[in-house]
Amino acid sequence: MTTSDLFPATRVAALREATAAAGIDALLLTPGPDLRYATGYDAHPLERLTCLVVRAEGEPFMVVPRLELPAAEHSPAGRLGLEFVPWEETEDPFALVARRLGAVETVGLADRMWAMHSLRIRDALPGARQALAGPVIGTLRKSKSPAEVAALREAGAAIDSVHAQVPYFLKAGRTEREVGKDIAAAIIAAGHVTADFVIVGSGPNGASPHHELSDRVIQPGDPVVVDIGGRMPSGYCSDSTRTYCVGEPPADFAAYYEVLRRAQDAACEAVRPGVSCESIDTTAREIIADAGYGDRFIHRTGHGIGLETHEDPYIVSGNTEPLVPGYAFSVEPGVYIPGRHGARIEDIVVCTETGVERLNDRPRDLVVV
Amino acid sequence: MTTSDLFPATRVAALREATAAAGIDALLLTPGPDLRYATGYDAHPLERLTCLVVRAEGEPFMVVPRLELPAAEHSPAGRLGLEFVPWEETEDPFALVARRLGAVETVGLADRMWAMHSLRIRDALPGARQALAGPVIGTLRKSKSPAEVAALREAGAAIDSVHAQVPYFLKAGRTEREVGKDIAAAIIAAGHVTADFVIVGSGPNGASPHHELSDRVIQPGDPVVVDIGGRMPSGYCSDSTRTYCVGEPPADFAAYYEVLRRAQDAACEAVRPGVSCESIDTTAREIIADAGYGDRFIHRTGHGIGLETHEDPYIVSGNTEPLVPGYAFSVEPGVYIPGRHGARIEDIVVCTETGVERLNDRPRDLVVV
Repeated sequence: MTTSDLFPATRVAALREATAAAGIDALLLTPGPDLRYATGYDAHPLERLTCLVVRAEGEPFMVVPRLELPAAEHSPAGRLGLEFVPWEETEDPFALVARRLGAVETVGLADRMWAMHSLRIRDALPGARQALAGPVIGTLRKSKSPAEVAALREAGAAIDSVHAQVPYFLKAGRTEREVGKDIAAAIIAAGHVTADFVIVGSGPNGASPHHELSDRVIQPGDPVVVDIGGRMPSGYCSDSTRTYCVGEPPADFAAYYEVLRRAQDAACEAVRPGVSCESIDTTAREIIADAGYGDRFIHRTGHGIGLETHEDPYIVSGNTEPLVPGYAFSVEPGVYIPGRHGARIEDIVVCTETGVERLNDRPRDLVVV
Repeated sequence: MTTSDLFPATRVAALREATAAAGIDALLLTPGPDLRYATGYDAHPLERLTCLVVRAEGEPFMVVPRLELPAAEHSPAGRLGLEFVPWEETEDPFALVARRLGAVETVGLADRMWAMHSLRIRDALPGARQALAGPVIGTLRKSKSPAEVAALREAGAAIDSVHAQVPYFLKAGRTEREVGKDIAAAIIAAGHVTADFVIVGSGPNGASPHHELSDRVIQPGDPVVVDIGGRMPSGYCSDSTRTYCVGEPPADFAAYYEVLRRAQDAACEAVRPGVSCESIDTTAREIIADAGYGDRFIHRTGHGIGLETHEDPYIVSGNTEPLVPGYAFSVEPGVYIPGRHGARIEDIVVCTETGVERLNDRPRDLVVV
């Protein structure tokens, strides 16, 4: 899996076509996942403007601060034959973009462009309507290429190797924060560049889906939700949840855990081309609701994953879009009992030509440690 | 230095006053340094909208996704008596913000608000002019309180302890990437939560100010620019540069290093209340230019630092703003000889009532390792 496989040189041309087809004059991509997807350039997000301009008509160019120029040229963006337009420390880069662009009606901004940039672009191009680049670039980003699936597979194996160590970290008497520190170190040791999130939700904290770490001391009999992920050198992300129990689980927990396991499994197995995103959510939700826990499953079933941990497609009620081979996303139903405990099981899956590939394969039965 | 010292409960009220004084109806702060400064809440930046609304008239409130509500309530924002307005997974949070705000003329957006949020706010509040919150909140953020200075002092000591180890990592025959990996681990071991950047620019790579890491093997006689920093648990950042030489420095390097050292020292010593930001830049630049290296110093002299590594005030030509006690920023002139090598020396300094406090104190003479 080389940089050229992951970020093929044809991509800017593909984006240009998509831009024209969307009736947008130019995409403006500042550092972030959209720029990385387009060029492979993992630029630092900074107040100084770096901006790839992909025009429906005319050649693309990238505005870069003079002192970032060597970094940009040596990045994978340097292979693309792009024109780099450096700007000096005392120049106005927004005026530079406007001058080079000329008259435009609509520009598409990177979804994560900072307001400090988008409002200055608005002022420099007062006649241009601003839209999101997301719908244009997202259509491409959503369908992962074989190289991208390989990168996600590698990320999945890395986070699985961390979950394999969690039973050794989780002990009654340790705090969530102590356990989380060990997990964060293991995420890096497993080959990630960053540990992006470490959720250790013990006992009642497990009932808050996005609880992170606290100084709560883990007690015997605590169910513990462990939801972890990071970013690999490829740029692609991992994200997987398992729920553990420190000693024998309480009866009211055991009652719903098996329901959750079935719901997560059924939702994964329902993945295939042509079925809608929301139907995957419905599959999980109905099993949980039928068992009487419908009001305890308080979030969507999943989110797309790639260069961002959360990206299109969202597996949520109302998203009627059909799945397409190459779509990669999480399947992570949960059950949360306020004041008591919670559980969640999460795998990353990829829609294949014929069904589904799971990128996480740690056991989904309750692990008693 | 407690959370209440760093993020006093009075801050939202101060922001409200500043908002009214700026003629803005409401500040809209999404996760990032502005929200953290206002409340202490270190919220994950996510596609789901979390937004603190600080109104010039009327009580502030924070819109949060239902599943982030416990995290928000347990964060330092939970002490502030703020109203939390949770939204459900299938609700439109932008319509919710618009409904609660009513008719407004001008809203101030967090400088780092993502376009995916700012454009939806634009559409939900079609009559409202969007401005940046930066000029309002930045005025407060720029002047560090004693607790903030203490947090920056702690960050400075932590990164100094890493520089103290660099001579043991830097050896001829190792690659920049190998050295960088050791430094990143030391940044974490020194108490940072994240290693935000690790620049190891050896030999000719030192001539690119924002070069990061490569597989270049460090050679005997290489000057090496090491510019490193991270974020402490307080949220406050470190950033310090030293230039090392692996063995005896080349003659053309030694010729300018001493000039640079004098320029950096003079610029630090010039810091005191009332002098302009640009005059600090001029002080460094003149010494370097007088020695014949004016065109080799290709960037501004410094940037403010706090909850962001780069923030106001910028120490750059054109910024006539006078320094005020509590302003904290880098002083980091450099000299860069393309194809050969480069050097930079960087300290974080704070403007005090009477002069300057340096927050980094590793030796500034060339360290030969």
